[in-house]
Amino acid sequence: MANPSIEKAVAHAHAQRDEYMTHYHELLRIPSISTDPAHKEDINRCAAWLVDELKRIGFNNCQAIPSDGHPVVYGEWLEAGDDKPTVLVYAHYDVQPVDPIDLWDSPPFEPTVRDGKLYARGSIDDKAGVWVNLKAFESMFAVDGKLPVNIKILFEGEEETGSPNMLPFVQQHKDLLKADLLQISDGGSLPDQPLIIYGARGIVDAEVTVTGPVRDLHSGVYGGIVQNPVHVAGDIIASFHDASGRIQIDGFYDRVKPPSAAELKALEESLKIFLPDWEAESGVKTWWGEAMGTLGERATMLPTLDVNGIWGGYQGPGVKTIIPGQVKFKVTMRLVADQDPNEIKALFTAHVMRFASDTAQVEVHASPGSWPVTMLFDSPEVEAIHRAFEATWGKRALMVRTGGSIPIMGMFQRELNMPITSLGFGVGENLHSPNEFLWIEHFYRNIDTAIHFYYNLGEITK
Amino acid sequence: MANPSIEKAVAHAHAQRDEYMTHYHELLRIPSISTDPAHKEDINRCAAWLVDELKRIGFNNCQAIPSDGHPVVYGEWLEAGDDKPTVLVYAHYDVQPVDPIDLWDSPPFEPTVRDGKLYARGSIDDKAGVWVNLKAFESMFAVDGKLPVNIKILFEGEEETGSPNMLPFVQQHKDLLKADLLQISDGGSLPDQPLIIYGARGIVDAEVTVTGPVRDLHSGVYGGIVQNPVHVAGDIIASFHDASGRIQIDGFYDRVKPPSAAELKALEESLKIFLPDWEAESGVKTWWGEAMGTLGERATMLPTLDVNGIWGGYQGPGVKTIIPGQVKFKVTMRLVADQDPNEIKALFTAHVMRFASDTAQVEVHASPGSWPVTMLFDSPEVEAIHRAFEATWGKRALMVRTGGSIPIMGMFQRELNMPITSLGFGVGENLHSPNEFLWIEHFYRNIDTAIHFYYNLGEITK
Repeated sequence: MANPSIEKAVAHAHAQRDEYMTHYHELLRIPSISTDPAHKEDINRCAAWLVDELKRIGFNNCQAIPSDGHPVVYGEWLEAGDDKPTVLVYAHYDVQPVDPIDLWDSPPFEPTVRDGKLYARGSIDDKAGVWVNLKAFESMFAVDGKLPVNIKILFEGEEETGSPNMLPFVQQHKDLLKADLLQISDGGSLPDQPLIIYGARGIVDAEVTVTGPVRDLHSGVYGGIVQNPVHVAGDIIASFHDASGRIQIDGFYDRVKPPSAAELKALEESLKIFLPDWEAESGVKTWWGEAMGTLGERATMLPTLDVNGIWGGYQGPGVKTIIPGQVKFKVTMRLVADQDPNEIKALFTAHVMRFASDTAQVEVHASPGSWPVTMLFDSPEVEAIHRAFEATWGKRALMVRTGGSIPIMGMFQRELNMPITSLGFGVGENLHSPNEFLWIEHFYRNIDTAIHFYYNLGEITK
Repeated sequence: MANPSIEKAVAHAHAQRDEYMTHYHELLRIPSISTDPAHKEDINRCAAWLVDELKRIGFNNCQAIPSDGHPVVYGEWLEAGDDKPTVLVYAHYDVQPVDPIDLWDSPPFEPTVRDGKLYARGSIDDKAGVWVNLKAFESMFAVDGKLPVNIKILFEGEEETGSPNMLPFVQQHKDLLKADLLQISDGGSLPDQPLIIYGARGIVDAEVTVTGPVRDLHSGVYGGIVQNPVHVAGDIIASFHDASGRIQIDGFYDRVKPPSAAELKALEESLKIFLPDWEAESGVKTWWGEAMGTLGERATMLPTLDVNGIWGGYQGPGVKTIIPGQVKFKVTMRLVADQDPNEIKALFTAHVMRFASDTAQVEVHASPGSWPVTMLFDSPEVEAIHRAFEATWGKRALMVRTGGSIPIMGMFQRELNMPITSLGFGVGENLHSPNEFLWIEHFYRNIDTAIHFYYNLGEITK
């Protein structure tokens, strides 16, 4: 252990175990459910409680900054020196609703320990992200009177409602949030394996309507002389992919970045962990699309286009001999770096509109999409994480991309224009479900990991 | 007028105008609604009333023959001589339900005259077919004591329920029904123009199910590695037609008979009458499919394949990022001579099943279809109809094919293997709707037409 402060801070954290945990229960007892207006005061109370906590630990300029929704908790400590990096630490203090309450074995806002697990709503998602950071900082302040890097704290109160006010907040506070690295402390690891999520796909959604005659028509009278809009919809859907699964929209792949060999290797390795669950959930024994790339590429690093639903004409029992007047279908596209949702929306619309004619009207309605995000994959900052996990877990993290979308990360990347890494400290289960729990041993271990990480970061020359 | 009996029989019918009409009211007052079990006794009463009527007029072997549903009214007069043709005359004595009763301006089973129209349920569909025939026969018997041809009467009581028991009835009574010509007295003419329907398309229907994963899946996790069944459905639907509208199922057109020049000419002429209504109903200003053939061919003499409805995945507001587990769609195909519904069903199924794979299960469920029917187009019998209309309407009939399906006619053609012609005597509107009415003047005129027709038929050497 190169830096003797690490050992001291870790020892301090270990000595404070019971106090840190008892104190965590206070935070978990505040029902900061952001989606429910009835809990507005609980949200405000939680924000104020955290501001007090930041002050107590040693942060400056601590405040609950109002937004158009719930307040953002901010605090900073910028005295590490200009040669040290400034890290913007993001986590969120709001939690999901608790329904169905009947399925909880203990009250969701009364933290309860059973078999080494701490049961409470928010225990991992994402009060663990808030608390592990704070307890690491508290330990470092306690033994050194300072932190190894400059820190800005940004704890959001609306993540579980889709962060509707985060974009304007960020745009209005760009100077305040200026930093060298954004570290997202949401998400987590597996019990036996630390993970770093370093990428997520963007998304564009659209609804397509194909309209033919003004009403459903008798197929005996009009069959052969009126174009059937469902056939046009079939043509459109069939046009989206070739037989290998490659999307046939002109220009769709132009900005797609090919993965590095190291990324591909990491992806295939991480998939080994998830595939058994995926097979069980999907019931699929044969994956599809192998001509497009490896399983890992297709699941996370290549864009997709899926029709999510389709409906038109007669859908009841038996036969109704009609030419339907209209058919609609919904499409979502998952985007990867460096695809631009606005550009993809335009390419998609142009592609679909080619099927419009005198006999079939075509309309496309798309909503604002979200950007893909690619975070740091190999860099001194990521190496700082790996070294922290090696010291506390005995192994490096698996580098993971999610095929899903994390709109707020893409937004941060676009607006703040700084490198991002993701370091989730939660290890547990049932996020968003009844009986959410945190593995207590991992909670303690991850305070150590965080201490290692911030000291490791402090060794990076800016 | 070659045959003096025609003039005498027509004069007799004219002298009996009031009596024939009053008597018709008796038939219309019987609420012979075949779809409603509550009217079973009315149906039986109507059948018995018609048997009595046949006897009174001069028919032999008159009976209400039980079927598995409602009875078939039969009667015969076979004394015209072996050198005269035997005509099997089909009409139906059952009627549609009267709902919505509020929309009737007078009670549906209380025949009411307003502005030259006779309002009553069944007044055209198809008690006109029953009654015009009977009054023509009555007039001929009255002046000659005999008929010019041998006649077998077959009045059905289940046409409005889809004739579920007609196939077994015909199969069990082939000797009884043996004849040289089947004449269908259902349908009708326009007020200014007599029509002969000489063809109808058959039909095959099928429901196709494409199943992928066992449940809807998150498109972020599975997008790119699980095949989307809606895309497979799109491929299937797109594969049904080429860009001109030609159906791409192997062997689909093998048995399609090309129209004669005379048929084509007649079709285009008849379409001129219907097109304005069709344009108004459909809202379509540009017809589709011109590369396939003329408008008349496409509407009536070429087969079609239409997807009547499709549904799968998320169909609500907003976005749901799923790969749907399943999608279903319904298909009907209209068939023309000499396509075989069983063969088409097999060809369709084989075509669709080519899209089944390890990653997308495909199922086809088809119900028994119905045969297309092509009746006499130019023959001495059709010429006998034209001459009858010329004598009474001053013009020949337009030869019309319907693009719709008349399953019972296809069944008669297959089972009885005799030439068929169609001669509807109803002229009016609102069949199957409130305020069904018959033009009274046409009713009288069509009794004359029927008299002419049967005497004309008697001149044909067998």
